[in-house]
Amino acid sequence: MARILYDLCGIDERLRFSPYCWRVRLALAHKGLDVETRPWRFTDKAALAFADHDRVPVLVDGDEVVTDSYAILRYLDATYPRAPLLGEGAAEARARFFKHYAERALAPAMMRTIIMDLFNAIHPDDRPYFRESRERRFGRTLEEFHSPAKGLAQLDAALAPLRGHLDEAEFLDGAAPGGADYLVFGFFMWARCVSSADLVSNADPVHAWRERMLDQHGGLGREAPRITDIAGAYR
Amino acid sequence: MARILYDLCGIDERLRFSPYCWRVRLALAHKGLDVETRPWRFTDKAALAFADHDRVPVLVDGDEVVTDSYAILRYLDATYPRAPLLGEGAAEARARFFKHYAERALAPAMMRTIIMDLFNAIHPDDRPYFRESRERRFGRTLEEFHSPAKGLAQLDAALAPLRGHLDEAEFLDGAAPGGADYLVFGFFMWARCVSSADLVSNADPVHAWRERMLDQHGGLGREAPRITDIAGAYR
Repeated sequence: MARILYDLCGIDERLRFSPYCWRVRLALAHKGLDVETRPWRFTDKAALAFADHDRVPVLVDGDEVVTDSYAILRYLDATYPRAPLLGEGAAEARARFFKHYAERALAPAMMRTIIMDLFNAIHPDDRPYFRESRERRFGRTLEEFHSPAKGLAQLDAALAPLRGHLDEAEFLDGAAPGGADYLVFGFFMWARCVSSADLVSNADPVHAWRERMLDQHGGLGREAPRITDIAGAYR
Repeated sequence: MARILYDLCGIDERLRFSPYCWRVRLALAHKGLDVETRPWRFTDKAALAFADHDRVPVLVDGDEVVTDSYAILRYLDATYPRAPLLGEGAAEARARFFKHYAERALAPAMMRTIIMDLFNAIHPDDRPYFRESRERRFGRTLEEFHSPAKGLAQLDAALAPLRGHLDEAEFLDGAAPGGADYLVFGFFMWARCVSSADLVSNADPVHAWRERMLDQHGGLGREAPRITDIAGAYR
């Protein structure tokens, strides 16, 4: 049975940077499940009409169509119970907090730091859509929103709990990576793929964790093409 | 067998405001375990010499002596397995993140907001110790550190992930409160007992959660004496 993941791509089809798609790719690897990723662009809404959805990730698993990264992780646990990602009960409730922590505390700080790099990594056909939708969300131009100094200071503060956690454990889920790790690490993959910005000092336990995460599942994260690998794309 | 919790008190013996002691009191109630709390003050190091420790909480459970709030929650789960607080494996690893989130993201923002109220709530004999140790930690005087405007803005930002979480669930641990809830709520009890500052708007899902938490275990939190209940203490 075919398993297909619609996966955001950028200026080059090999450049895959969606933090939400990275959660799913890592979750599939955690379960040992193969997947064919299908490159998709922001403005290609027609390609997702079959899913009645307008954003990726969209996972097609045989006859099942699942949207939203967290819902896909839940689906994977329900369908393939071996090697749980989120678990059940209090474990699942706690995992959900990492989703919000990544999206509401880390992502805005990273966005502020890398947004012009991100804009540059997006396919030229997608840029008007991206600019218009994000400028409406931020209430100002991308150029006005962009502030690596403010973004990095905000990220440094937001990382404090993660730093405390990773002083005591190898992974967010303890001795081995799990759903909480993927929910957060997806955003580090996002930044890594589109930007060469240094988000965390190499003396930070978060840095060491990110290095460990890059090596998981045969180096899935580390091997992923970055904007710096695309000839002529990084200005 | 006697079960005794050494519990920080303030200007009045009934005033118990340590966030770490509150974690333990709520955890004991969650397990349905009785406890005798024994009032203790910062400078009464001699009273804890038996535990080879200089801070509360200290739990004496028959022949066992356990220090540190998180270690006490772990001890309670190991000794009284019914109604798990933290659980095991990934569930426990994820619970630990709430400890760091509360201590590193929420507590500093609350401290900045309430520190002069806190100072006022501390027993006069403890104030020189408190001032000297905190001023060394902050690198400035209590009065210079005190800034409700900055503290509340910092708290508002730090609460963003909690707000997202509580938009979707009644408690941090899901449908019923558990270890993650107590690890965080202890700090709301701390602020509540020493200060009348409004930390969260009543339209905030965090506010509704705090109200639910105050009602748990027969209103243990809601019934706790506050500085505003101590005649003449709140200036």
